[in-house]
Amino acid sequence: MGKTIAINAGSSTLKFKLFEMPQERVIASGAIERIGLATSPVHIRYGLDHKYQETETVPDHLAAVNIILDELIKLHIIERYDEITGVGHRVVAGGELFHDSVLITDKVLQQIEALSEYAPLHNPANAIGIRAFKKVLPNVPAVAVFDTSFHASMPAVNYLYSLPYQYYEKYGARKFGAHGTSHRYVAGRAAKLLGRPLDELKLITLHLGAGSSITAIKNGRSLDTSMGFTPLAGITMATRSGDLDPSLMAFLMKKLRIQDPDEMLKILNTKSGLLGIAGSADMAELEQRCDHDERAQLAIDIFVNRIVKYVGAYLAELQGADALVITAGIGERDAKMRQRIADKLSYFGVEIDPHKNQVSGVERDLSTPDAKIRVILIPTDEELMIARDVERVGHPQA
Amino acid sequence: MGKTIAINAGSSTLKFKLFEMPQERVIASGAIERIGLATSPVHIRYGLDHKYQETETVPDHLAAVNIILDELIKLHIIERYDEITGVGHRVVAGGELFHDSVLITDKVLQQIEALSEYAPLHNPANAIGIRAFKKVLPNVPAVAVFDTSFHASMPAVNYLYSLPYQYYEKYGARKFGAHGTSHRYVAGRAAKLLGRPLDELKLITLHLGAGSSITAIKNGRSLDTSMGFTPLAGITMATRSGDLDPSLMAFLMKKLRIQDPDEMLKILNTKSGLLGIAGSADMAELEQRCDHDERAQLAIDIFVNRIVKYVGAYLAELQGADALVITAGIGERDAKMRQRIADKLSYFGVEIDPHKNQVSGVERDLSTPDAKIRVILIPTDEELMIARDVERVGHPQA
Repeated sequence: MGKTIAINAGSSTLKFKLFEMPQERVIASGAIERIGLATSPVHIRYGLDHKYQETETVPDHLAAVNIILDELIKLHIIERYDEITGVGHRVVAGGELFHDSVLITDKVLQQIEALSEYAPLHNPANAIGIRAFKKVLPNVPAVAVFDTSFHASMPAVNYLYSLPYQYYEKYGARKFGAHGTSHRYVAGRAAKLLGRPLDELKLITLHLGAGSSITAIKNGRSLDTSMGFTPLAGITMATRSGDLDPSLMAFLMKKLRIQDPDEMLKILNTKSGLLGIAGSADMAELEQRCDHDERAQLAIDIFVNRIVKYVGAYLAELQGADALVITAGIGERDAKMRQRIADKLSYFGVEIDPHKNQVSGVERDLSTPDAKIRVILIPTDEELMIARDVERVGHPQA
Repeated sequence: MGKTIAINAGSSTLKFKLFEMPQERVIASGAIERIGLATSPVHIRYGLDHKYQETETVPDHLAAVNIILDELIKLHIIERYDEITGVGHRVVAGGELFHDSVLITDKVLQQIEALSEYAPLHNPANAIGIRAFKKVLPNVPAVAVFDTSFHASMPAVNYLYSLPYQYYEKYGARKFGAHGTSHRYVAGRAAKLLGRPLDELKLITLHLGAGSSITAIKNGRSLDTSMGFTPLAGITMATRSGDLDPSLMAFLMKKLRIQDPDEMLKILNTKSGLLGIAGSADMAELEQRCDHDERAQLAIDIFVNRIVKYVGAYLAELQGADALVITAGIGERDAKMRQRIADKLSYFGVEIDPHKNQVSGVERDLSTPDAKIRVILIPTDEELMIARDVERVGHPQA
């Protein structure tokens, strides 16, 4: 028994969730933003409904870790640092090295840093978070939980691009996918809800948030996923383009007089998707505007269209599915969106009950009794998955 | 009644097929290759089984046109130039300007040339062919038949990318598709074979050749297609990559020290696909090698996988289909490939009769009697489609 902290470190943020394990009880959660800038807001939620907010000077991630732990003590959430018996770190890219979560050694940390070319914005920040916690809690086991590792089971037929083969051998140019921790979590919960063993199920999991991805899961393992070499590929997202004819990279670079392909990628990552089509990256806003705003309606239609096409593709690959599992911000909260997706898939025997669907953020089977493919809503919980992996990998004797 | 010649002009080639119309009887066909190089092979097939071969000096497309017409006279296929009453030109890119085949005026020719940025290798060559025939046969109606125009019916939800909307408005960055003439032809023939009106059918047409594309056709109109802004996108092809995470463009340019995105595109167009994976762009060779060559088998598996995923996606978009229609080089000749594709789609009620499938290049319904979605083999005939459009558009009084 102990307390495990799940960490998601960005370049200027540090988010955490503190669990009592193995009870999986959330004791506190929070975030520090704008690290390294003049003032940093610090948020902590704890107890039944307590919120702590403060603005502090947080020069770097090391300071952020100390502030979080000190605040946890001040708020009487913990009494001493050494109550924390495990740290779990979200890491975006695990490349081909990490097929599961792993206890972080010096070598592992070097490997995570070396994988930065696959996730230039994320892995360096993740590594900074790891170093900061290691300094403050040097004797506590730390576990890295990779967004990609759930997809390590993909077969070559799905992870290989139709490129010169040596680009895979020499440079690791292949599909890695992302959101693996979320897909893994909701698949497990869906199996529980269906009352069937996960390793006998065919599932299509739809993680629909600011970043969105769809995964075909066969017998509990990722068979295929919509994100690619990076999280830019796949369906339309809040600000990311998803799949594109690669010729457009060259065409638009010429038209926009861009020399550096990374500059073009920045547009595809941050100015495209729903934002590019309709001027807003916020699906809730588009839902409100779409009645009187054609462009908002078009963005919604394109979002639905790309989802429906991936589901069709994965139904073909899986040769059917027991259930679609919907999760993440849009998936959990937007009942209209779930209805649209289900309606477009009625040919395959997908049908949701509009009354059951009037819900937000709870686990529920939304299907009508006769639906051939069930639709299950599961709020995702990546932090819990990270805490569980700390137990499993960081305390193997337990 | 007259003779119509269908022309496909490349940068250094001129292919033709001569029809007696409206009987649609092929009188002769042939090609001149290596135009502008030291020696140019000239091939003409005519009559029941006659082949004419010669090597000549062909400095340019104008000379090529004269040589073809003079040889046709020498071979007593025609007696005089003016027996040719119509010329049809294949043009690759019609952009948003041309939603149907069109009589070529000076303005149309200028527009075809202006559309070269959408097909830099093809449209300039097509325009050269048009100019050459215009010089030799100035009074004969010439019609442009666009690879893209069949796809003009695609709705915005399918032709728009999830990019900043102004890239579509300012630069025409959208999906255009290709192979339209082939998809249109085989859809029409499939409807005849099914004995049902085309405008009541849902079809998925699979043009599987060196270039490959898949189209969802609803009521006779293209709803969606796998090629994109250019013919690079979509499924794995002989030497083209098909769909890619756009991030790979930037990543590989760095790894390969390539500055010019067009150079990267050249690799994606000419060194990728089956050739990139398995070292051969020839499916017939891969079929022979695959028993003892893992990489050949992998290339075949990837080819099938991408096809099957697009078919699944289009079944979702169309909400079902009456038939899959298979055509073009690989589709017409490779019975094993047709069997693989059908097997992977059995969940949807696709089933072909292995005996009926032992056939090459004939029109045939390959399905078992109980198949829910039929599979129909139709040899494509883009030249006939061009000749028909010359009759329809070039001789509107007829």
